[in-house]
Amino acid sequence: MTEPLHEARPPGAGRTLPDTQQGMRRRNLARVMHAVSAAGSLSRAAVASRIGLTRAAVSTLVDDLIRWGLLEELGPERPGRVGRPGSALAVSARGPAGIGAEIGVDHLAVCAVDLRGEVRARAVRRGTNRGRAPEPVTQELTALIRQVVAEAERAGLWPAGLAVAVPGLVARDGHTVVRAPNLDWHDTDLGPLMPGRWPLTVDNEANFGALAELWLGAGTPGDFLHVSAEIGIGAAVVVDGRLLRGTRGFAGELGHMPVRPDGPPCPCGGRGCLEQYAGEEAVRRAAGLEPREDLVGLLAERAEEGDEGVRAALREAGTALGIALTGAVNLLDPETVVMGGALAGLSPWLLPSLETELSGRTAGPACPVKVSRLGPQGPLLGAAHSVVRAVLDDPAVVAQRA
Amino acid sequence: MTEPLHEARPPGAGRTLPDTQQGMRRRNLARVMHAVSAAGSLSRAAVASRIGLTRAAVSTLVDDLIRWGLLEELGPERPGRVGRPGSALAVSARGPAGIGAEIGVDHLAVCAVDLRGEVRARAVRRGTNRGRAPEPVTQELTALIRQVVAEAERAGLWPAGLAVAVPGLVARDGHTVVRAPNLDWHDTDLGPLMPGRWPLTVDNEANFGALAELWLGAGTPGDFLHVSAEIGIGAAVVVDGRLLRGTRGFAGELGHMPVRPDGPPCPCGGRGCLEQYAGEEAVRRAAGLEPREDLVGLLAERAEEGDEGVRAALREAGTALGIALTGAVNLLDPETVVMGGALAGLSPWLLPSLETELSGRTAGPACPVKVSRLGPQGPLLGAAHSVVRAVLDDPAVVAQRA
Repeated sequence: MTEPLHEARPPGAGRTLPDTQQGMRRRNLARVMHAVSAAGSLSRAAVASRIGLTRAAVSTLVDDLIRWGLLEELGPERPGRVGRPGSALAVSARGPAGIGAEIGVDHLAVCAVDLRGEVRARAVRRGTNRGRAPEPVTQELTALIRQVVAEAERAGLWPAGLAVAVPGLVARDGHTVVRAPNLDWHDTDLGPLMPGRWPLTVDNEANFGALAELWLGAGTPGDFLHVSAEIGIGAAVVVDGRLLRGTRGFAGELGHMPVRPDGPPCPCGGRGCLEQYAGEEAVRRAAGLEPREDLVGLLAERAEEGDEGVRAALREAGTALGIALTGAVNLLDPETVVMGGALAGLSPWLLPSLETELSGRTAGPACPVKVSRLGPQGPLLGAAHSVVRAVLDDPAVVAQRA
Repeated sequence: MTEPLHEARPPGAGRTLPDTQQGMRRRNLARVMHAVSAAGSLSRAAVASRIGLTRAAVSTLVDDLIRWGLLEELGPERPGRVGRPGSALAVSARGPAGIGAEIGVDHLAVCAVDLRGEVRARAVRRGTNRGRAPEPVTQELTALIRQVVAEAERAGLWPAGLAVAVPGLVARDGHTVVRAPNLDWHDTDLGPLMPGRWPLTVDNEANFGALAELWLGAGTPGDFLHVSAEIGIGAAVVVDGRLLRGTRGFAGELGHMPVRPDGPPCPCGGRGCLEQYAGEEAVRRAAGLEPREDLVGLLAERAEEGDEGVRAALREAGTALGIALTGAVNLLDPETVVMGGALAGLSPWLLPSLETELSGRTAGPACPVKVSRLGPQGPLLGAAHSVVRAVLDDPAVVAQRA
């Protein structure tokens, strides 16, 4: 009797699905989907034993899921087993798909992911979006989306939703970009600018990157702090497998943690923020490089070649990251810190000084730091998978579409 | 279709109660308790309409709750209403009670709180526990607990559980004090040292203080950062009405957030941690005072009298708190910051410089700072209420005791 004492609300108060017979059925549909999804393929009997329902109850649920195109039967299981042969079930490779899109500072990207988690179509356009108005950017993005959707539809898929990753803060309404400094967008509602045919979610790229790490990162636990960078430095906090969003949806602003409180002024109004030491622009200046596209690639290349100026700049950035992360780790006690986005590619030169700060400033064992294998792909994949997850988590929502 | 996209786990995966008919019944029992508790008194029909169940279903649940001693009937409602008169229900003032206990650096305290949330018995012993071994301290505490329980029992209450607040880090097992620097306790399992008759939970005083603020603080929202101090500086993060505990149970270590990374060394291994500027010891030294008990009282008294040395020391502490809180607020985006514990009493002299830092370093409106009205009472009340909440959240657990 330890944890239950701290349940601050009546059990169930935070759930999406109502606590009725119908809600229970919807949750059980989700359990079936997740059980089959986790196993790859599974008989009805195996599903029943895994989720603790009767074979009869599971069969009713499975029949609906097959009718909606979410599960498919792989044919009878191999003979030789005792009892009536059951047909193995698998998550359908046709049917609903998640459409993920990314508005990057230097690129646009779109992909379609099926319920099995496989990328089935993809399109990318390189070129800066810095300072461009939202309309032309979203028009280009819409063209890419139509191209990817057409390709997905030819493969028997249909979009269950569209999720867009942006390099900025997004309001909790899930479609308004409150502030994207590197695009120079403010209070931009993407709702009217994106195709209206599918449910839309817009979120910060760091959030989608963290969700991708949670869902796709091998061995990533359910409690971690995900640090990423495109131009600015963002973070996302995952607790018990859930993203911590904050009251306004602005949680994760690690880039404006004061590292040296009397340091250089920051556009945010503060002084000595982490971005003044470890942001792309700060590192570029410290390394004595000119502004250019794909600065991260250049930094990695130069550091690899042994350029001492670049290496020193990255060391300094690692130190600043380590100081900021010490504060974050003390506050959150995550199981691990994951370096994603552009930081993943620079980690060989950032990590040593980062870890020196983190371990030197911590009583007891320091929080381990892990480098994301998804790197810059994280936000796009996280966006597409967020749609897929929504279907797996509440399969009944697609009933009317199927 | 915004938030559901981000549900990282199948709905219900995080719940305590199983998703079965029996689990549903237990959750509905909790709904009835919370509905009556929130309203003060309520007829069966009003309960049914508030929680969306039929009158018949509610009556069955209510009968059990009355039988277990959790609800009582106040007699028929006043006449003049249309329909058959219903008997108003209220949460029982007899039956289960929460026993809260606090091991402070300078005191021990125990109280009993009934299901209505009223303190029905209380005992305090002043005197330092600094450097004392766990055994004599817990023996004294046990004597106080027996005294409070005896008084509660005379009032028709029985202890549903015991919750103990400690000034240190507690493992997620809920009974081992990993580190309580000001008591000099390390890896102390309180399980065998406390009376074994009741379910035991041990937690950090900052956590219990935050829970008290959540449950009892008028107008406190469900997302806040609670900052408190006894000797060290602790914080607790409440998100969506739940305490964020961290992987090891160590979340909330705001005191070791680096404020000036090259500042004075801290026993934690770091440099320039918040505690080096805003901890009781640091403020005492900066104010030029000798060590003594109830330093906070003395600081408040001197500041009130206009002692410029003390005021300057508190101003500096407020600045350091503001720097650390800027980082925390950027990371968590809470709705408010609540100053509790000893900080509440010093807030008139801490807040101006704290708020200057917080607003000066934040883009957009600064996170509001609120002073807790519970102050030093928070941890003890939070402990006792955590037991009460556990009963309200799953009333069926007391069925066999009643």
